[in-house]
Amino acid sequence: MPGPDRDDGVDEFQSIARLFAPLTDGAPEALGLTDDAAVIPARPGFDLVVSKDAMVAGVHFLPDDPLDLVARKLLRANLSDLAAKGADAYAYLLSAAWPPSCGWSERERFVAGLRHDQDAFGVRLIGGDTTGTPGPLTLSITILGWTPAGRMVRRSGALPGDRVFVSGTIGDGWLGLKAARGEDLDGLLADQVAWLADRYRLPQPRLALGHALRDLASAALDVSDGLIADAGHLAAASGVAVALHLERLPLSDAASGWLDCQPDRNAGLAALAVGGDDYEIVCTARPDEAGQLAAAAQAAGVRLTEIGDVMAGQGVRADFEGKAVQFAHTGWRHG
Amino acid sequence: MPGPDRDDGVDEFQSIARLFAPLTDGAPEALGLTDDAAVIPARPGFDLVVSKDAMVAGVHFLPDDPLDLVARKLLRANLSDLAAKGADAYAYLLSAAWPPSCGWSERERFVAGLRHDQDAFGVRLIGGDTTGTPGPLTLSITILGWTPAGRMVRRSGALPGDRVFVSGTIGDGWLGLKAARGEDLDGLLADQVAWLADRYRLPQPRLALGHALRDLASAALDVSDGLIADAGHLAAASGVAVALHLERLPLSDAASGWLDCQPDRNAGLAALAVGGDDYEIVCTARPDEAGQLAAAAQAAGVRLTEIGDVMAGQGVRADFEGKAVQFAHTGWRHG
Repeated sequence: MPGPDRDDGVDEFQSIARLFAPLTDGAPEALGLTDDAAVIPARPGFDLVVSKDAMVAGVHFLPDDPLDLVARKLLRANLSDLAAKGADAYAYLLSAAWPPSCGWSERERFVAGLRHDQDAFGVRLIGGDTTGTPGPLTLSITILGWTPAGRMVRRSGALPGDRVFVSGTIGDGWLGLKAARGEDLDGLLADQVAWLADRYRLPQPRLALGHALRDLASAALDVSDGLIADAGHLAAASGVAVALHLERLPLSDAASGWLDCQPDRNAGLAALAVGGDDYEIVCTARPDEAGQLAAAAQAAGVRLTEIGDVMAGQGVRADFEGKAVQFAHTGWRHG
Repeated sequence: MPGPDRDDGVDEFQSIARLFAPLTDGAPEALGLTDDAAVIPARPGFDLVVSKDAMVAGVHFLPDDPLDLVARKLLRANLSDLAAKGADAYAYLLSAAWPPSCGWSERERFVAGLRHDQDAFGVRLIGGDTTGTPGPLTLSITILGWTPAGRMVRRSGALPGDRVFVSGTIGDGWLGLKAARGEDLDGLLADQVAWLADRYRLPQPRLALGHALRDLASAALDVSDGLIADAGHLAAASGVAVALHLERLPLSDAASGWLDCQPDRNAGLAALAVGGDDYEIVCTARPDEAGQLAAAAQAAGVRLTEIGDVMAGQGVRADFEGKAVQFAHTGWRHG
């Protein structure tokens, strides 16, 4: 119900004016967060790319994760969608539903995280709202980016014969969640465990790949549900089948170390390939442009590994050194 | 944490494909909700107006309100922001965090509410996401509208000498919350109590006023926190003072009936003027355009009542038949 805001200890208007308004960096679109709406002038020749992703404490991040890292993960997960679409990051709107435990100092910490990463990735806050909740901290960002008109990279453009690529390394998000939860990761050094937890808490949106994807990828999306599931989404949207060769799966040193300690290497690789939260990009390219895409990624400083092929048919299959790999399930989904 | 979606009984992908994708009405911007982002072509000569409002069960609506009405209120509250900005409604993105109690049939009911009101108000779903939550149902819409370039009505344009107007009737949202909660509303007929509860559950976004506001209002916003609080926001953004004459406060028959039963008429009027959830529009117009604005509202079929004046200074004051009215607090805020 509506209630006088003084009941919960933080004045929402003060919270917006003092904590959030500075995040607009004076962007005229934001009107200082003192109006009901942001206003975005048309940019002839460009499309506005809009995505919206929510995160809930206990579902998408650990309830005791520091709020600066939560803010950064929230922003990065949304930026990862723009990256996969070949869009240039532009601005964002934020909705936050704060539980009573999130007082002024927690919000300051949250804002510090946004400030850090919005500067790092070149976006500004232009709108949104905040409210209270009796439930867990619930956050939603609407992220905005630009592409030249008609140039957004879709999930649906893959054709039989295309090559399949993935950025960065796969499986670190899933291992990182175990690390962040304090679960046992046999055989790994403390440094590696900490590095994995960081990878879970702070994914790396691959915005540097944007222009290469725009020019050279036939289809792309970001790997949030797990490589196998997300490759499946690409296959379904494109009306094709995708075959992945797991011996080519790019692994971090930490993930390699973990895999070496698994009694069943095949099952271990499968677990990494279905694990979520990597926020890497899976994309496809025509066979005659695959080399150019790999070179453009290298020039952008992003590791890009060819891991499979697009074929006629449907669904995803994976093999390891020529033998089919089975999955108990194909991906992790955020409930 | 990520978890296989089959644990909560509803497959989120099925939920999106079968329940939500039809709400796109085939809009090309939405890409069938099968991609990571919506893509909006530039509309030269127009600004895109963007607002984002969240609602939480138990904060913004009653936990046992039927979900079709919740969906409609969510959409209408967001449309009300567009209306106050003089924008034409265009499209929306939705984030929903479902508690385990919201299974398929509850989501179907929610979607039926969206379908009803998106048809009524001419908008389409073009993106968003859904997830699970261990907490209360938490919803967020990002609403999009268009205005001719540079023509969005802001909160900040009021000048001393302007007249203050309000649409519809004031206080029904606050009384309607009491009615919806089953609180005693002495002296009202059962029909009036039911009508008030409906007003709380289904506000009326004043989109019909849009063009009149765009052409003739100097400042505007929608009344969600309460007339006094929202007039205060307009005053603060414009750097002026607002004086309201409460004997002119437009009241519904039900609110008039309630007021007649109050022992202290002055206090009763004050309660209606600070009550939230009206989703009417408070706006200002230059004195020489006030008559045109009133006529344009009448032509649009929307009641618009002149209730005050803009002056040099700051803050809001209210009087009743020439005597100052005091408020214990100036408005209701959603946590």
